[in-house]
Amino acid sequence: MIKFLYTAAVYFFLMGAIHAQVINVGDHGIRPGKDVTLDVNLLLESLKGKKNVTLFFPKGQYEFYPENAVEAYRAVANHDNSIKRMAFPLFGFENLTLDGNGSTFMFHGKICPIIIDGSTNTVLKNFSIDWEKSFVNELKVIENDTNENSFIAEVANPKFGFEVKDNEILFNHYDWQDGIGQNIAFDPKTRAPIWNTKDYFLKYSGSDVKIVKLDYNKAKFTNITKETPPIGTLFATYGPSPGGNRFAQAIHASNSKDIFIQNVTVYAAGGMALIAERCENITLNKLVVTSREIRNFSTRADAAHFLGCKGLIKVENCLLQHMLDDGINVHGAYVNIDENRGDNTFMCSISHQQQWGLTFAEPGDNIMFTSRETVLPISATTVDDIKILNDNRMLITVSEVPENLPTGPLSFENITWNPDIVMTKNIVRENRARSALISTKGKVLIENNYFSSQMNGILIEGDNKAWYESGGVRDITINNNTFVDIGFGDGEGYPLFVSPMLTDEQRLGDEKYHQNIRFTNNVIKSYNGLLVHARSVKGLLIEGNTIDLSTDYPTGSKLPPISLDYCEDVTITKNTFNGFTWPLRIEQSDNNTMIHIKKNKGLSDK
Amino acid sequence: MIKFLYTAAVYFFLMGAIHAQVINVGDHGIRPGKDVTLDVNLLLESLKGKKNVTLFFPKGQYEFYPENAVEAYRAVANHDNSIKRMAFPLFGFENLTLDGNGSTFMFHGKICPIIIDGSTNTVLKNFSIDWEKSFVNELKVIENDTNENSFIAEVANPKFGFEVKDNEILFNHYDWQDGIGQNIAFDPKTRAPIWNTKDYFLKYSGSDVKIVKLDYNKAKFTNITKETPPIGTLFATYGPSPGGNRFAQAIHASNSKDIFIQNVTVYAAGGMALIAERCENITLNKLVVTSREIRNFSTRADAAHFLGCKGLIKVENCLLQHMLDDGINVHGAYVNIDENRGDNTFMCSISHQQQWGLTFAEPGDNIMFTSRETVLPISATTVDDIKILNDNRMLITVSEVPENLPTGPLSFENITWNPDIVMTKNIVRENRARSALISTKGKVLIENNYFSSQMNGILIEGDNKAWYESGGVRDITINNNTFVDIGFGDGEGYPLFVSPMLTDEQRLGDEKYHQNIRFTNNVIKSYNGLLVHARSVKGLLIEGNTIDLSTDYPTGSKLPPISLDYCEDVTITKNTFNGFTWPLRIEQSDNNTMIHIKKNKGLSDK
Repeated sequence: MIKFLYTAAVYFFLMGAIHAQVINVGDHGIRPGKDVTLDVNLLLESLKGKKNVTLFFPKGQYEFYPENAVEAYRAVANHDNSIKRMAFPLFGFENLTLDGNGSTFMFHGKICPIIIDGSTNTVLKNFSIDWEKSFVNELKVIENDTNENSFIAEVANPKFGFEVKDNEILFNHYDWQDGIGQNIAFDPKTRAPIWNTKDYFLKYSGSDVKIVKLDYNKAKFTNITKETPPIGTLFATYGPSPGGNRFAQAIHASNSKDIFIQNVTVYAAGGMALIAERCENITLNKLVVTSREIRNFSTRADAAHFLGCKGLIKVENCLLQHMLDDGINVHGAYVNIDENRGDNTFMCSISHQQQWGLTFAEPGDNIMFTSRETVLPISATTVDDIKILNDNRMLITVSEVPENLPTGPLSFENITWNPDIVMTKNIVRENRARSALISTKGKVLIENNYFSSQMNGILIEGDNKAWYESGGVRDITINNNTFVDIGFGDGEGYPLFVSPMLTDEQRLGDEKYHQNIRFTNNVIKSYNGLLVHARSVKGLLIEGNTIDLSTDYPTGSKLPPISLDYCEDVTITKNTFNGFTWPLRIEQSDNNTMIHIKKNKGLSDK
Repeated sequence: MIKFLYTAAVYFFLMGAIHAQVINVGDHGIRPGKDVTLDVNLLLESLKGKKNVTLFFPKGQYEFYPENAVEAYRAVANHDNSIKRMAFPLFGFENLTLDGNGSTFMFHGKICPIIIDGSTNTVLKNFSIDWEKSFVNELKVIENDTNENSFIAEVANPKFGFEVKDNEILFNHYDWQDGIGQNIAFDPKTRAPIWNTKDYFLKYSGSDVKIVKLDYNKAKFTNITKETPPIGTLFATYGPSPGGNRFAQAIHASNSKDIFIQNVTVYAAGGMALIAERCENITLNKLVVTSREIRNFSTRADAAHFLGCKGLIKVENCLLQHMLDDGINVHGAYVNIDENRGDNTFMCSISHQQQWGLTFAEPGDNIMFTSRETVLPISATTVDDIKILNDNRMLITVSEVPENLPTGPLSFENITWNPDIVMTKNIVRENRARSALISTKGKVLIENNYFSSQMNGILIEGDNKAWYESGGVRDITINNNTFVDIGFGDGEGYPLFVSPMLTDEQRLGDEKYHQNIRFTNNVIKSYNGLLVHARSVKGLLIEGNTIDLSTDYPTGSKLPPISLDYCEDVTITKNTFNGFTWPLRIEQSDNNTMIHIKKNKGLSDK
C-alpha cells in the first residue's frame, strides 16, 4: 500500500512537471533585491482557477515584508491562531509548483511564507526560507562571575538591538519585541543543548534577578540562572508561550493532497518549519532545517509536524538541526466529549488551545469513542454530521452510539485520518527535545536515520492530558538507525521511549495502549547505556541492536537500559552492549506477560 | 431631504412590522434562566434567506455565554479587531425585528451581543443588554490618609474578586483579568467625573506606588494618585488601551441600511453601546445607556458612534449617561496616501489602528484628495476600483488625478458617505469626555437637548493626526438646547468648541476648514462663563443664547467666553450673560474677517 501510494505520488509529480505552464516571475515585476510581496500576491491571485502552473524564480534573494501582504484569520495547529499576513497564499490550486532555482526568500517581521490550503499536488522546491532577524534571540556568555552568580552576554543582531525596561530585557524585532520567555542554554562546542541545561534556565523575574544594559550589544545578568553558565554558553530565548511566540510558521499545509517539498532549506521560523494538518500524502525530500552561519539556532519550534493526516508521510534525506523543539512529530487529536445532547449528537471541544480551529473530522470519517480514564478505545462509529460552533466547540452527530456508553469522561479519536510513515536517511540532531514522536495507527518504517537529540530519541507516547496527541500505535518498525548520545540534555533520555502519558486521575486499562513495535539492528552510541523504556505495549521486539559506550558526556545512569511495565509479548534478543563499566539490568514490573529474553550480550535480566 | 428620508424610514419600519412572521423564541427552546446562546445561534441560522421575521422574546432574563457561541473575525471601528463570539449575528437579513418585550439579555464574559451586517431594515426594540460583571472595575474610597497619600478602597463585585500580584491589582472577570489601565475618578454626589479629576488619575506603576490586598473586597493604595482622593470617590478603571479593552461592543452595525433601535437599554459594554460604520439611515429612539442601580458606570467607551455613514442619523428621546467616553460621535476617516503607483492608482493605508478593516470606500464613491499639511480639500474624484490588501492597506484607483497634485503628504476623504443628523430631546450627562462630536458635511440639526459633560459640550473638530476623524462641517444648527456645567472635569470646557486639530507640522491653509454653523437660542448654566471657541470657521452665527451663572462648581475662568481665531463672516448678537462677577470679553486674533458683534448683554468685545 505504501509502495503504491508513493509510486502514484511520484507519477502525479512528474505529470505535473511535464504539462506545467512555466511562468518566469521576473516577467511580472518580481525581481531580487526589493519587496516583492504585493507582486507575488497579485500574480497568485491572477492564477486562481488555473491548473498545471510552475512559478519559476530566477536565482536571487527576494524580499518579503508584511505591510502590503494579503491576510486572513488562520487557525494553525500547534501555533497561535491569528490574522496572518501571507507571502504565498496557495489556496485552491491544482498542480502548482514553486521552483526557486536556488533562490532565497528573505522575510522581515510578522509574515507567513507559504500556506497551502485546499490544494492538490503542490510542489515546493529549490529555495531557502530565511528571516532578516531570527525569531530566536541569542545571548552569548562572554564573561562570568561565579561568586555573585552573574554573567555578561553579547546580544546578537545589533541592527535591531534590545532594551532593558523595569528589569526586563526586551529584544527588538522588525515589528515586535520579545521578552525572555521560553529559553534554553546550548553548548558552543556541540552546537546542541548543554549538559544539564535546566540549571541554566533563565528566570523571567524574581526579586534577586537583575538585568543591566551595558552597551548596544551587551547586558549583565545576575542571579537569573541556578548555576552560573560557562563562558561561551549560548542562550536561545524565544519569547512567551502561551502568549504568542508561535505566530509565523514557515510552511503551513492544510486540507490538501499530495504535497512535495524538496531541496528546501528553512533557516528560521516563528514556529515550525512545516506544520501539516488534514493532509493526504506528503513527501519531504532534502528538507533542511538548520541555523544560518551567523547564527546558532534555526526554528522556534519543531522542524516538521503532522496532525490528523492520512495517506503516506515520506521523509527522506532531510537534515533537521538546531531547532528549539522536536524533529518530526506525527499524531492525531483527542477531542473532548462535553455533553451527550441526545439524537446521537455530542457537544465536543478541542482539548488544547493550540489545536483550536483544527478540522477534527468530517462526515464519513470513522471516529472512536475513547475512555478518558484509560485512554483506551471503546467503540467505533461514523460521523454523520459535524457543526462547527467556533474554534473550540462543535456538535458531532454519529451514526451509532453504543448502548452502554461508560459514564466516565469520554473523548473521540479520529481513526480514518492516520498516516503511514516512511522515514529514511535523515539526520536529526543538535536540537532541543526529541528526534521523532510517532503516534499513528498507520504502518511506520523508520530506517537508516541518524538521531542525536536532547531528550528521548523516538518517543511513542499518546496523551489525553497535556497536548492531547493521539493515539496508540499498531505497526512500527525502527530498523538500522544510528542513535548518538541521546538525552544529552539531562542524561535520562532513551533511544526508544514508549508509554502513554497519564494524569493522576487516569489509569492503565485492560488492553495495552500500544501494539507491535519492532526496534531492530540499530546502532547506539551511548554514555548512559539506555535503550528502551516500554509501558502498556503488546508486541515488542528488541533485536540485534548494538550499544557502544560513548564518553562524550558523563557516563553512567541510575535508570535501567530496558524497562518494561505492563507489557505483553516482548522479545529481547541478540542485543549487544559494549564497553559499559556498570551493570546493565533489564527492569521489569510484576504486571508483564510473555517476556522472552535471550542471547543478549552485556545485559542481564536478573 | 431630511424630512423625506425620515418619513420613508418610518414607512418601511411600519410596513416591516405589518407583514412580519412572528416567531416566539420559546417555541425553539429559548427560555429565560439558562444559557440560550446556542439555541439563538441555531434559530438565526435556520432563518437565513427569510424576510419579514420578528423574533419575539417572552419577557424574562435570558443568559448568554461565550462557550458555544458562533464566532468570526470582526473588524470593528474604534474597537479592537479580533475573533468575536456572537450572540445575535444578524448577517444578511431583510426586515428582521428583535422584539424583547421588556426582556433582559444578560451576558457573561467575552461575547458580543448584536452584530448587524449586510442587512436591510433591522429593528431592535424593547430589551436591555447587560453583563453579569461590568467591564468597568469600580473602586470606592472608604478611608484615606493625606499624610502618607494613601487610601483604602472597596473593590466592587466580590463574586469575581481580584488579586494583587507584583504590586499590580488585577480585576477578575468571567474569562479574563484587567489591570488598572485607563481610569478616571468620579464624584459620588454628582455621579459624574470629579472636579479636577486628573489629579486622581491612578498611575499603573512607579517605584513609590504600593498596592496591598487587605481583604476579599478591599485594597490599600499608596502614592498612586497625585492628590489623595476624598472619601467616597469612585474610581472607574477599565483596562489597558492600546492592548485590548475594547473587544465587546454591545451593538455593531456595518454595511447595512435602515436600522431602528428603540426602547433599548445598555447597562454595560466592553466598548461602545452602539458602533455603526458604513450604514445608511439609523434611528435611535429611547436608547438608554446608563449604569445599573448597583453600579456607577455604564459603557467602557462612547454611547453611540458613527463612522462613514450616510442618509440620516436620527437620535431622539435618548438618555446617555455614566459612559467613560463621548455621548455621540459622527465622523469619517482620513486615509493616508502612501504612494502614487501610476495609472491613477494609489497605495493607501488606514491611519488609526482602531479603524483598520474599515470599508473606507467602494467603487462609485466620490473621494477628495486632501492636503495632510492644511487638512483642506484639493480635488474631488471618483473611485473606479479598490483592492483591499489587508486590514491596513488598499490600492485605490480613481477616475481622475489632478495634473498638479501637491508634492506634500496627502490623504483621501470620502465625501459621498456623510450623513445628515437630527438630534432632538436627548439627555447626555455625567459622562467622561464630550456630549457630542460632529464631523460631517451633511445637514445637522441639534435641538432641544440637555447636555452636561466633563469636557466640551459639542466638539466640532476634524483631525488628521490622532484619531483621523474627518472632516470639515458645512451646515450645522444648534438651537434651543440646555447646557449645564459643561467642562466640569477641569473647568475649561466650552458648550461649543470648533477647531480642526493640527499637529506641529500641519498649518491653517487658505480656506477655512469649517463652514456655516449656527449656535442659537441655547440656555447655558455655566460656572465658567464660556460659550464658543471657534478656529478656522467661515460663517458662524452666535445668537440669542442665555448664559446664567451657576455655582455648582468653583466659578471663574481665565479663558474668554468667546474666542475667534482665523474666522470669517461671524455674527455674535443678542446673547445675554447673567450674574457673572468677572469681566467677560470676546477674544479675537488679528486674522479674523467680517466679524459682527452687537446687542449682547454682559459681554464685551473690547
